[in-house]
Amino acid sequence: MKIDRIETDLIGPLSIPAGKLFGVHTQRAEENFNVTGFRLRDFPELIRSMAMVKQAAALTNMELGLLSSEKALAIAEACDDLIELRAIDDNFPVDMMQGGAGTSTNMNVNEVVANLALLKLGASVGDYSTLHPNDDVNLSQSTNDVYPTAIRLTLLRTCDALIAAQVNLRDTFRRKGAEFADVIKVGRTQLQDAVPMTVGQEFEAFAELIDEDIIQVQSAKKILQEVNLGGSAIGTSINVPPTFPSVACRKLSEISGLPLMTARNLVEATSDTGGFVAFSGILKRIAVKMTKICNDLRLLSSGPIGGLGEIRLPAMQAGSSIMPGKVNPVIPEMMNQIGFQVIGNDLTVTLAASAGQLQLNAMEPVIVLNILLSIRMLTRGMEIFANRCVAGIEVDKDRCRALLDQSLVLATPLAKLIGYSKAALLSKRALSEKKSLRSIVEDDGCLTERQIEEIFSDYATFANVPQRTSA
Amino acid sequence: MKIDRIETDLIGPLSIPAGKLFGVHTQRAEENFNVTGFRLRDFPELIRSMAMVKQAAALTNMELGLLSSEKALAIAEACDDLIELRAIDDNFPVDMMQGGAGTSTNMNVNEVVANLALLKLGASVGDYSTLHPNDDVNLSQSTNDVYPTAIRLTLLRTCDALIAAQVNLRDTFRRKGAEFADVIKVGRTQLQDAVPMTVGQEFEAFAELIDEDIIQVQSAKKILQEVNLGGSAIGTSINVPPTFPSVACRKLSEISGLPLMTARNLVEATSDTGGFVAFSGILKRIAVKMTKICNDLRLLSSGPIGGLGEIRLPAMQAGSSIMPGKVNPVIPEMMNQIGFQVIGNDLTVTLAASAGQLQLNAMEPVIVLNILLSIRMLTRGMEIFANRCVAGIEVDKDRCRALLDQSLVLATPLAKLIGYSKAALLSKRALSEKKSLRSIVEDDGCLTERQIEEIFSDYATFANVPQRTSA
Amino acid sequence: MKIDRIETDLIGPLSIPAGKLFGVHTQRAEENFNVTGFRLRDFPELIRSMAMVKQAAALTNMELGLLSSEKALAIAEACDDLIELRAIDDNFPVDMMQGGAGTSTNMNVNEVVANLALLKLGASVGDYSTLHPNDDVNLSQSTNDVYPTAIRLTLLRTCDALIAAQVNLRDTFRRKGAEFADVIKVGRTQLQDAVPMTVGQEFEAFAELIDEDIIQVQSAKKILQEVNLGGSAIGTSINVPPTFPSVACRKLSEISGLPLMTARNLVEATSDTGGFVAFSGILKRIAVKMTKICNDLRLLSSGPIGGLGEIRLPAMQAGSSIMPGKVNPVIPEMMNQIGFQVIGNDLTVTLAASAGQLQLNAMEPVIVLNILLSIRMLTRGMEIFANRCVAGIEVDKDRCRALLDQSLVLATPLAKLIGYSKAALLSKRALSEKKSLRSIVEDDGCLTERQIEEIFSDYATFANVPQRTSA
Amino acid sequence: MKIDRIETDLIGPLSIPAGKLFGVHTQRAEENFNVTGFRLRDFPELIRSMAMVKQAAALTNMELGLLSSEKALAIAEACDDLIELRAIDDNFPVDMMQGGAGTSTNMNVNEVVANLALLKLGASVGDYSTLHPNDDVNLSQSTNDVYPTAIRLTLLRTCDALIAAQVNLRDTFRRKGAEFADVIKVGRTQLQDAVPMTVGQEFEAFAELIDEDIIQVQSAKKILQEVNLGGSAIGTSINVPPTFPSVACRKLSEISGLPLMTARNLVEATSDTGGFVAFSGILKRIAVKMTKICNDLRLLSSGPIGGLGEIRLPAMQAGSSIMPGKVNPVIPEMMNQIGFQVIGNDLTVTLAASAGQLQLNAMEPVIVLNILLSIRMLTRGMEIFANRCVAGIEVDKDRCRALLDQSLVLATPLAKLIGYSKAALLSKRALSEKKSLRSIVEDDGCLTERQIEEIFSDYATFANVPQRTSA
Repeated sequence: MKIDRIETDLIGPLSIPAGKLFGVHTQRAEENFNVTGFRLRDFPELIRSMAMVKQAAALTNMELGLLSSEKALAIAEACDDLIELRAIDDNFPVDMMQGGAGTSTNMNVNEVVANLALLKLGASVGDYSTLHPNDDVNLSQSTNDVYPTAIRLTLLRTCDALIAAQVNLRDTFRRKGAEFADVIKVGRTQLQDAVPMTVGQEFEAFAELIDEDIIQVQSAKKILQEVNLGGSAIGTSINVPPTFPSVACRKLSEISGLPLMTARNLVEATSDTGGFVAFSGILKRIAVKMTKICNDLRLLSSGPIGGLGEIRLPAMQAGSSIMPGKVNPVIPEMMNQIGFQVIGNDLTVTLAASAGQLQLNAMEPVIVLNILLSIRMLTRGMEIFANRCVAGIEVDKDRCRALLDQSLVLATPLAKLIGYSKAALLSKRALSEKKSLRSIVEDDGCLTERQIEEIFSDYATFANVPQRTSA
Repeated sequence: MKIDRIETDLIGPLSIPAGKLFGVHTQRAEENFNVTGFRLRDFPELIRSMAMVKQAAALTNMELGLLSSEKALAIAEACDDLIELRAIDDNFPVDMMQGGAGTSTNMNVNEVVANLALLKLGASVGDYSTLHPNDDVNLSQSTNDVYPTAIRLTLLRTCDALIAAQVNLRDTFRRKGAEFADVIKVGRTQLQDAVPMTVGQEFEAFAELIDEDIIQVQSAKKILQEVNLGGSAIGTSINVPPTFPSVACRKLSEISGLPLMTARNLVEATSDTGGFVAFSGILKRIAVKMTKICNDLRLLSSGPIGGLGEIRLPAMQAGSSIMPGKVNPVIPEMMNQIGFQVIGNDLTVTLAASAGQLQLNAMEPVIVLNILLSIRMLTRGMEIFANRCVAGIEVDKDRCRALLDQSLVLATPLAKLIGYSKAALLSKRALSEKKSLRSIVEDDGCLTERQIEEIFSDYATFANVPQRTSA
Repeated sequence: MKIDRIETDLIGPLSIPAGKLFGVHTQRAEENFNVTGFRLRDFPELIRSMAMVKQAAALTNMELGLLSSEKALAIAEACDDLIELRAIDDNFPVDMMQGGAGTSTNMNVNEVVANLALLKLGASVGDYSTLHPNDDVNLSQSTNDVYPTAIRLTLLRTCDALIAAQVNLRDTFRRKGAEFADVIKVGRTQLQDAVPMTVGQEFEAFAELIDEDIIQVQSAKKILQEVNLGGSAIGTSINVPPTFPSVACRKLSEISGLPLMTARNLVEATSDTGGFVAFSGILKRIAVKMTKICNDLRLLSSGPIGGLGEIRLPAMQAGSSIMPGKVNPVIPEMMNQIGFQVIGNDLTVTLAASAGQLQLNAMEPVIVLNILLSIRMLTRGMEIFANRCVAGIEVDKDRCRALLDQSLVLATPLAKLIGYSKAALLSKRALSEKKSLRSIVEDDGCLTERQIEEIFSDYATFANVPQRTSA
Repeated sequence: MKIDRIETDLIGPLSIPAGKLFGVHTQRAEENFNVTGFRLRDFPELIRSMAMVKQAAALTNMELGLLSSEKALAIAEACDDLIELRAIDDNFPVDMMQGGAGTSTNMNVNEVVANLALLKLGASVGDYSTLHPNDDVNLSQSTNDVYPTAIRLTLLRTCDALIAAQVNLRDTFRRKGAEFADVIKVGRTQLQDAVPMTVGQEFEAFAELIDEDIIQVQSAKKILQEVNLGGSAIGTSINVPPTFPSVACRKLSEISGLPLMTARNLVEATSDTGGFVAFSGILKRIAVKMTKICNDLRLLSSGPIGGLGEIRLPAMQAGSSIMPGKVNPVIPEMMNQIGFQVIGNDLTVTLAASAGQLQLNAMEPVIVLNILLSIRMLTRGMEIFANRCVAGIEVDKDRCRALLDQSLVLATPLAKLIGYSKAALLSKRALSEKKSLRSIVEDDGCLTERQIEEIFSDYATFANVPQRTSA
């Protein structure tokens, strides 16, 4: 490791590798926390949010007369570099899972912004007497207000990508629902043949499931828009000018384009992670529904012979190295696993949120990491799922019809004519004699031919299909 | 066991114990499922909700000409008995955790309502040719729409008791916050002394935590108001007249006094448990916050000597059989355990919700059981917690002040005058020499007497206390 | 409430209801903790274990000269009453989920034992100057060693019932495995038809799954045999004679018939709940396997037409009130829900175990409650599952064979003769033309008739069935 | 992207990037699954294990006459490259979380091994007619036996690093325990002052906690040593010579140096993930204990003034950007978060294990990913924790003594002399008058001077310290 310069903190002097814009605090943190393999640089959206916060703070400090224009504008310009994702890869090595409640993330950003600003001022990297990571870049701030604010910004922005993926998946299911609107099939409860329905209804219900989650994600945004910037160390705004919170919040809204507001009770807002718990809970709910949908698709496409076999998922890769021609539902299986991971991550968030003590929750880093990972996996997963699986699903109409014809799903409307007990008796006979219910009813003679025709000629009547005429 | 009568189902004849109003399906279920010790009778609110649904259905069937007035009114009257919690204890023995997606709960209610109605009609118990549990009481219904509808009704009503407990707890904390508004103390982050604050701010923040949850519970009601009554077996409304859903929903709103509406997509609504996942998630969020609050109270009251010792919880019982005079924080400990149970129950709900397949989720019974238990424990727990613990909390002003005076919490405002590094240096000296920061500063001579007075005379200045004058 | 007598503790005087053998500490606890509906009396096994510990302690105190024979023998006799489950129902009202780390449970037992002993001595209930709940019954003990010791005893004994249920279930599956040894069927991976196997192999694998868990439960006993009796409040044996731990442990082994030993490090053993975490983890593992097995049985019995339909579960109750003849897999569904509950309970145990602080884990009551509930549900559930479901399973040989004949499961051995690519090609053709693989191969002419016969005549060859000759 | 060559599978032709040794199946998988950011190359230990399995299989196939020596030795040599971690970085891009039950991981390895072997044979990359990824490298194997076998190998080997970290941490605590053996302090239950103990006992108990987990990890190895290599697709050993399983297992034991054995029931072993559930459960148990230990260390070091302040953790970085001189317990906080992550990961493993269906569990990839991540985080975390935190802990003897002197911990032995009630009374007086218990006792006159001396002169008497003489 080529060494560029030595920096010193309370612990002592430390060598900083050549070509790096971070300083001693980042270097210490890198040594202290190296456990997950997930580094700050792997989450550029969080760096961007931190830079937006730093920029808003610098401009506010300038407006309130606490920071010279020269310094403030250099800092703001440096933040623009990060917002536009320049200088990211080499300079943000701290592990996302860190002790210190995010201090290392904050200091990493403070140091890189300070050094970028120093270069813009014509000074050299590390010349903190000219512009200081703490005294200038971090002025009027504390990790405890900056870090949660940046997290909320990040979630608000990554939400939009998630919603886009949800909308795409919902619409893909909806298109499939329309495509399969006329295909009548066996509806099943408890895995047992129940009553008739259409494949279209089944896929439209998947779309509806997703639609309800979109509403949830959108409403969660409101909780996330409340920030504690200006609350300082514990929400009492120590060392912060009285107007800083409102001015900084306004500036941050402008920079980010997001409608932020200052939380009502900053003491509570500093330690509270309820918003993250709620948001993670919504991600878990999405995961639960993805689990259900993928389980259903795998069931419906099971076989092709020894299963339900009603639909065919598009083949995305060879299924087996030993079984020729086998095609597996690999995309839903991937999505299922994402669901398990998101549910596990939600537990981690729950545990970390429960562990807050007194005026701060020191476990925020693991909360952030898990929520960001869950959003990322769900977003990518749903895109792949929609485009590489759902969009290409085909239905086997003949098999749907054949299963329906052999099944006893018309025993329910039959009961309306001949009573529950008689219908049950004939059903039992059909099953044990392996005959169709229709032939058993015909044989029994309990109904007229017209009645038989009425029951057995048009399943759609009993499936409550809106456009029955086209069925 | 004295036997009253024999009833028969598809499996065969079965003896019903003397004096019971339930029938063969209930008796089978009691034998099949006897695992948790929680029986339907232990949740009278659920029985009431089922009875309201049955009443609404009977009156709708009468209005639509499907059921004679005589039968319908007898059923409605029978339902009133259950709504007013008569005949509950002996007649609802089915285990809350049952296979069959709630069919046994539905049949238990159908049978008891039928027999109560038969008695009102002057017929004898078990005379189902006069009035039938399935053909009459269950007319136009399926377990799959009746059961989820009754669950939602139950949750909506038990919610109100939960909210009342939350409001009481919030207000108790708020009163304590006002009572302790002037007590200055050490604010702590990461369990380390940080900056000054008041005990009032700390308790007001607890109130705020709870207040936010009240809003969540209230907004959850909206999701629960959508019912799938009239969707029948899989949401296609098979064997149900077209106007039944809307009429029955209106009648049920009148009976229950709740603003119910029919779900937009009944196929989706039949299998979806997303509303329960969301609701359980809110209960989990409450649990997380209770965990944090109780952890804090136990910390703040730790000692009395070898701990923080800032507050005293009221003594509710002797703490130890071996250690005389020991008083333990038993109520917060109980509340902590409730929190763990609710979080565990939420996982059970999540697992069960994920296990839905195709047109139904057969695991709804365990979902209901866990949500109802969690609500009950939280409601009772918060009442006890508010009245037997929080209301009686006392603060040790002298200790709060003594800890503050020995601590270094004024290093932060000091840094504004003498710089971060100098402040850090003096702090370190104070700590190692075990002297007060003030005496170290005086000794150092870096500040004028007036400046020293400014920093060290009034902690409240730095605690952002609204009514500083009274401090 | 008729009042019997007044008792007084540090908080003040309190009325005790008439006819009760408990005292003031129990009465306080009943008022403080009333949240779960689960009371100590609902777990007689725990009361028995507590009584065994009290008896062992009394006899040890007598042997060590700390307690008069008269008192010790009266206490021992009183304990016998409880061990034989007399006087349980009315006298153990404390909620299982209690603050105070089990003190209320311990005091409830101390008080009832004291009053039973007083009666045996001819004194009257409440005459604690003659024999005292703390000074005599609790002599040389602390809740912190008595309570965990009693829990371990309880787990060791309830384990045996659990193992019996496991053995029965395993053997039932094994008998079914033998019964179905010759039935060839489609083996499936990822829900897709894979290669041939027998129903016997499938059921034998279920038996093996359970067998491995039996070994786990048995080996867990070793961890539970280490008790901390004699460690007193924090494991330092304060106020306990040096030989008490070893003598009391020996006596408790005799009384309980269990091979107990004193933990190596009593300080660690007092606060450690690792043994409970491990044990609960084993229960979770059982739950995971039950989930898998029940999912499989529900899949294999799905249909009867529009599903796999290879097996039939015995009908235990009518499946639906609206769909005549429908039979649902209610017992596996119940078992699935037990699985979800046990997994949720394990999380509660994990959370509570993580919450131990310094020299004690105050959250033990919720740990005990959840483990005991999980054992009870698994034990009862497995009994019902074995006897009311597995034992009556029937196989549909014809359907198994028909699915096999239409499937492509012989493409894998075919590939050995004609290569992977060619086999894949022919499989694809068979699927798209909806013909059997054999007819496609015959049509293609790539194999001789003898080769065709070799591949297609005996599935058993490829299923690795031990007694192939009888197939 | 520079393209090297075109490869074709059942789906069609696909471009392979220049300079890559993988083929079409890997390329497909990379496109299908790109969700976690964790790629196969990030887990070189898993690649090594796969290579060992491939080598064992090749040598077995050679010995059984199924594969020419030339091919087999080229494959074996290629595997050696991977075992020695050559050619890893560029060639293993598949996402660890993949659909297809590990097929993509298997095919990635098959393709890279094939191409490495081709180069060794003087052929060119992609010339599969000379040596084929499926027909040769994967001969006699299926993903369903190869992949789980390689996972077990990986766990067995990574276990050793974990155990080393555990041993180091245990020994570090033990050294500290010896160092602090004579420091008497307040022992606490339920966060309330209880009875005397030593800091040495407290740290020795931490060591013991860890020691018990080491035993658990070691005993888990036995479960992991059972492999299903040779079971082929579903455990029926289709397309596998009868002696292959035993020979391959023997060879794999030699190559890996691990005492492997073939599972008793290969059908069960193929779908069972119970071993992984058990292993993950042990990791969770470790996490629970780490949580407890780190919570305790953070509590004991809280303050330095307004907390317990008995110990000082070494300062590893500046604690705050705004509060000068603040030092935070960052390493235990990191370890706490690792604990939360491991517990969350265990839930993911549990969910995935529960989702196995019929003859396979398709969710193994997410199981592997989570277990490997948990091991890695625990191993690295414990190393950092031991070396950067525990090893440098210092005790504040004066404070320990001062808290002890002011506390009421001697009320318990006092009760042996003057009775529980009197002791409770004097304790209460001491607390309310804020005097020492000794002075209150002296003032009361209930004890002789000698008795007072006996109780109050030597705390160690009551702490059960082995070498009391040196105290």
